[in-house]
Amino acid sequence: MKDYAFTVTHSMPGTLARAGVIHTPHGDIKTPVFTVGGTKATVKTLTPEMVKEMGGQAVLANTYHLMLRPGADIVEKAGGLAKFMHWDGPTFTDSGGFQVFSLGVAYKKGIDAVAHTEKGTSANAKSTSKQLAKVDDKGVTFRSHLDGQTLRMTPESSMQLQWQIGADIHMAFDECASPLASPKYLRESLDRTHAWAKRCVVEHERLWKEHEKLDKPYQALWGVVQGARNEKLRRESARYLASLDLDGYGIGGVFQPEEIPETVRWVAEELPEDKPRHLLGMGNQVSDLFLGVEYGIDTFDCIAFTRQARNGGIYTSTGRINITNAKFREDFTPIDADCDCYTCKNYTRAYINHLFRANEMLAYTLASIHNEYFVVHLVDTIRESIIDGTFLKYKATYLEKYFGKPFTI
Amino acid sequence: MKDYAFTVTHSMPGTLARAGVIHTPHGDIKTPVFTVGGTKATVKTLTPEMVKEMGGQAVLANTYHLMLRPGADIVEKAGGLAKFMHWDGPTFTDSGGFQVFSLGVAYKKGIDAVAHTEKGTSANAKSTSKQLAKVDDKGVTFRSHLDGQTLRMTPESSMQLQWQIGADIHMAFDECASPLASPKYLRESLDRTHAWAKRCVVEHERLWKEHEKLDKPYQALWGVVQGARNEKLRRESARYLASLDLDGYGIGGVFQPEEIPETVRWVAEELPEDKPRHLLGMGNQVSDLFLGVEYGIDTFDCIAFTRQARNGGIYTSTGRINITNAKFREDFTPIDADCDCYTCKNYTRAYINHLFRANEMLAYTLASIHNEYFVVHLVDTIRESIIDGTFLKYKATYLEKYFGKPFTI
Repeated sequence: MKDYAFTVTHSMPGTLARAGVIHTPHGDIKTPVFTVGGTKATVKTLTPEMVKEMGGQAVLANTYHLMLRPGADIVEKAGGLAKFMHWDGPTFTDSGGFQVFSLGVAYKKGIDAVAHTEKGTSANAKSTSKQLAKVDDKGVTFRSHLDGQTLRMTPESSMQLQWQIGADIHMAFDECASPLASPKYLRESLDRTHAWAKRCVVEHERLWKEHEKLDKPYQALWGVVQGARNEKLRRESARYLASLDLDGYGIGGVFQPEEIPETVRWVAEELPEDKPRHLLGMGNQVSDLFLGVEYGIDTFDCIAFTRQARNGGIYTSTGRINITNAKFREDFTPIDADCDCYTCKNYTRAYINHLFRANEMLAYTLASIHNEYFVVHLVDTIRESIIDGTFLKYKATYLEKYFGKPFTI
Repeated sequence: MKDYAFTVTHSMPGTLARAGVIHTPHGDIKTPVFTVGGTKATVKTLTPEMVKEMGGQAVLANTYHLMLRPGADIVEKAGGLAKFMHWDGPTFTDSGGFQVFSLGVAYKKGIDAVAHTEKGTSANAKSTSKQLAKVDDKGVTFRSHLDGQTLRMTPESSMQLQWQIGADIHMAFDECASPLASPKYLRESLDRTHAWAKRCVVEHERLWKEHEKLDKPYQALWGVVQGARNEKLRRESARYLASLDLDGYGIGGVFQPEEIPETVRWVAEELPEDKPRHLLGMGNQVSDLFLGVEYGIDTFDCIAFTRQARNGGIYTSTGRINITNAKFREDFTPIDADCDCYTCKNYTRAYINHLFRANEMLAYTLASIHNEYFVVHLVDTIRESIIDGTFLKYKATYLEKYFGKPFTI
């Protein structure tokens, strides 16, 4: 029996925002939710207890990275992702599809250069001989970024790896194309992503039947909608994937905040209302969270918040600060007086500034706890505002305080 | 009023081992104890809650390092060391005397090369133009190892800095000389250390009177016995420092396990029984802990256990292993099945091996928790064995299991 369900409990009239619950074998996830990044089966610098304490509900790991190290077979032998990393809640795996992009056309150019027109050109979206991932219709050939060995990933192998890793929710293997690619390439790429989604469904069903015989729990499969910034392609992609009756849907791509409302709306309008929707590839902007929810997103992930934390970039309710700045050397107040995280309750800016300047690893832990709490807690309060019907007002108030001026895109 | 006391509660006949309690304004320390290294006002990779959970009773920071970064004035403004680092227990500071050695004659040669005859020669113990610390009778001139700026430390300034940093227990400023230095140099150095100890006492008393007027708590001063491997010098040093009636005593130097019994015994026989004794400069050998206690040591510190943890060197009850070794990739047992630390209760060798190979910072945290628990807990069980009178038996049994053969030095 499939021990998996999604229930919408509240909707926000005048928007596509909703609150709900995803039920998995490892527990329930209240949505909207910010899932915590655990790429290599660890939430960087944090223990699972810290993740729980700061409100983390679910962890998202990456199939490509775990395939390379330690190997999906080892995660399987350990009893699956959650048990391997001592996390007693729900887990997701991303399929490796994003690495087709980041190690492919975006490799060594930077994501912005191949994704955003103000920073890149369509010439950047062309393949080069240096890239580590090459796409063909059957799958993708990677050269490992660790040791150069050649690896092959196909829709079937991604499903096999994800069943081995054993997260509660899998993503279909897709091609994340550059939005700057030519119309011809985007068309071919989308057809490929759809063919792969179908192959993922077939392989996923086969593996589920094998697992069911052994009385093992169901692992859900979410499809990934592509189509760059083209309304026709996005709606077509959402309709096609909806027809496959998947357990949920990811919205793939690379987005600037101003692109989120339209793109997400096109997709959300086509997808079934009773399935959860995940925004893959959000940026590091807090406004993305409000915009995503407003246009129908239920689950988010983004590693940028903890990456910035490790560089001293700290989110506060009035904007971002760099805690390594000399002006904080003698500042004996918390990072954010409005914040209830462990770091803000127990440490001063001066101390965290000292830890960064002294290259002490506790700096990264304390800053990551704060930033991750910040974003997890923000999505929690967004959920509450949907439930009590104040979402739009909360959005306006929060973003005006955050940006220091009324928010418009 | 001085809110500081030391009480011996149990002695072990036939040895100099004893159990007791050091009372400080920040709480009691049950001895023998392994104090946790917090050189730069942080226990590397651990939160203070983790240190408490693994049984840490007291933290030892370093005056030289805190003088450089963030500055003793900032620690003072933050409310003192314990408050600055969010540690609600007792604290020690080392005086900076060891840096006279490590940045002086030992700089860039390695401590072994200037401390151990089988690895170094007496020529190594000579000063060079490259060293960052130069000693004269009035004090020490350092070139900062961070930015090259010239700094001066004297017995008086070390006391001033330590009162600013505000630990419960200070160490007198001494010269830690190389045991390979010439007899003439060792004589001069010991006279200097004694003159400095006297100056420390005078300055410490002056600062205590100032603090007492402001109703601030007493901070204890422990003297540091030197004299290398020379019985006459060691006994003379202990007697001289005993005559100054300090609050406790450190035994300075750099020791190999086989040197501990004699050297510590010479000193312990001369020091007053009602004052605690700290072994500065123990190595990374678990046998040092048994030998130190047997010959009268009450408190220990050593950063080698956590440093080794960060390199994958893990202590178990049957010896040391390197957890990064390929043979642990599929080992789904805990690091040490006999260990009750957080790491051993929740993680496998395979997972920790993965974290190290993936360069994930949680590796250092989990390994540090284990090694620090290992050594803190070992000294706790040594204390218990003194109380129940089984110390010598416990020592023999433990070390035979650890080394795989009966322990002799």
